[in-house]
Amino acid sequence: MSTHTAVPEDTLNGAGRGGNLERYDPEFTDKVINAMGPKTNPRLRTIMTSLIRHVHDFARECDLTVDEWMMGVNMINRCGQMSDDKRNESQLLCDVIGLETLVDEITFKLAGEATDLATQSAILGPFYRHDVPLSEMGTNISDNTPNDAVPAYMFGKVTSAKTGKPLANVEIDIWQASTNGLYEQQDPEQKDCNLRGRFKTGPNGEYSLYCLKPTPYPVPDDGPAGELLNLMDRQPFRPAHIHILAQCEGHKPIITQIFDKDSKFLDDDSVFAVKDALVVTFDPRKGDKLAQYELHYDVVLKSM
Amino acid sequence: MSTHTAVPEDTLNGAGRGGNLERYDPEFTDKVINAMGPKTNPRLRTIMTSLIRHVHDFARECDLTVDEWMMGVNMINRCGQMSDDKRNESQLLCDVIGLETLVDEITFKLAGEATDLATQSAILGPFYRHDVPLSEMGTNISDNTPNDAVPAYMFGKVTSAKTGKPLANVEIDIWQASTNGLYEQQDPEQKDCNLRGRFKTGPNGEYSLYCLKPTPYPVPDDGPAGELLNLMDRQPFRPAHIHILAQCEGHKPIITQIFDKDSKFLDDDSVFAVKDALVVTFDPRKGDKLAQYELHYDVVLKSM
Repeated sequence: MSTHTAVPEDTLNGAGRGGNLERYDPEFTDKVINAMGPKTNPRLRTIMTSLIRHVHDFARECDLTVDEWMMGVNMINRCGQMSDDKRNESQLLCDVIGLETLVDEITFKLAGEATDLATQSAILGPFYRHDVPLSEMGTNISDNTPNDAVPAYMFGKVTSAKTGKPLANVEIDIWQASTNGLYEQQDPEQKDCNLRGRFKTGPNGEYSLYCLKPTPYPVPDDGPAGELLNLMDRQPFRPAHIHILAQCEGHKPIITQIFDKDSKFLDDDSVFAVKDALVVTFDPRKGDKLAQYELHYDVVLKSM
Repeated sequence: MSTHTAVPEDTLNGAGRGGNLERYDPEFTDKVINAMGPKTNPRLRTIMTSLIRHVHDFARECDLTVDEWMMGVNMINRCGQMSDDKRNESQLLCDVIGLETLVDEITFKLAGEATDLATQSAILGPFYRHDVPLSEMGTNISDNTPNDAVPAYMFGKVTSAKTGKPLANVEIDIWQASTNGLYEQQDPEQKDCNLRGRFKTGPNGEYSLYCLKPTPYPVPDDGPAGELLNLMDRQPFRPAHIHILAQCEGHKPIITQIFDKDSKFLDDDSVFAVKDALVVTFDPRKGDKLAQYELHYDVVLKSM
């Protein structure tokens, strides 16, 4: 006959919390990683190996308790329950801890080494639209401009990095949020494709349009991501910015956000996307009834 | 007048993927961590600092792209959308990468050093119930026993680690899944509190009951956690086990799962909870029409 006895497992030393990872089973993480079978896709194996190791190290490093872990589980469940076609709360949760900006940087660097457009187009972000019709140069992309908006004229020239000469047939996409912080597809009050423009350069390589001097807006803060921001004693605003995509056959596209140097929140963008090189100046514009400011923004494209 | 020029950012070396974390902005992670304001709760600051650092290191270490990250975001959203009162898919997703077992280990060790029952009760798991009525010794906790079940007799003695003598007034809780893999609260076909028993030891410290020889069951694999198991070329089953809680005033409780040594999946528990010390033997039982097997399981409790 077998006899078993349960004895308390707390026979370890009485050391305080933190620091000493050795107090937990040192073979556990390898056991979980090694459970992956031989048919696992190699790239998935690489990703899961790194993810499991970091998640376990995180838990050990801060002595994460069941209650604390369960708070995280509940937060993640609520993110999914809040998400739909119009809103992606898990994405926003990643954004406020800088993960989207980081994978953007990673993807951009990989894309710089790659030659396929598919890879490169991955960093367009959630508000890009593929189906914006071409506009004439100098078009005003703002329909029914709100009273609190400041119109601006944006213009520049696209040149080849190799020859220094103007590039024709470059598609320039511009998109921005309205003064209420919403992109047109988020806002039933805005006309379809409002504050979006697609332009094609002529032989002189130039583009021009009227848009809005961009304004700061808060990321949606009525869900778990907003709760986390609040818990971390942070504010939800993004600084004023405009999105730009410039692409041309045989060249590497440029996809970026540019930030107004006079905007608030440049130093504490809630999603950490600001870099010095992306900060631009809107100058006062004279003699133009349609715009009080202007932005001169040139683009240089490299060959594939 | 200001003039700005967008130039391609891919001016880094052409090094291949992986390994070199230095190719990405080395100051980015500190910037995100340092964004936490002074009013952040100190424990949350510790947790978020470690989490942000490990999540960023993970992304850099495997050169995580936007598309790969977005697959993870979608998986997490689907976990939340699938979760409700009866099912917690984000918890299950953690379970299959070993996180629940790890935080159990951490919490158990912390609880061993703590003196408050609140901390210790955190590791009871999702299927424990506080409201099970006391049963007489020798009760059969299986109602309407399924045809494919094998009845077993479980018994033992609770003693004090300090004195070696029997402990009276110890509450022993036992709970297990039925042969269909479901605990009673998951299964409308089972009677309330089926396969649960709560017993209180007398002066001899002994307890006894009839239950089922436990059987393996798969974790629910029709959601994202099941997809991940499949992608990792792993199987969803847990080995046969019984849950036990033993508690008594003035003593540290014992909360554990014990595993049948003859069960399949002892070496590949889908949630990694098996330890050698928790594997027990069910012996054939003679002369008892009510049970074909018996388990002798003694418990030793330490003082607080």
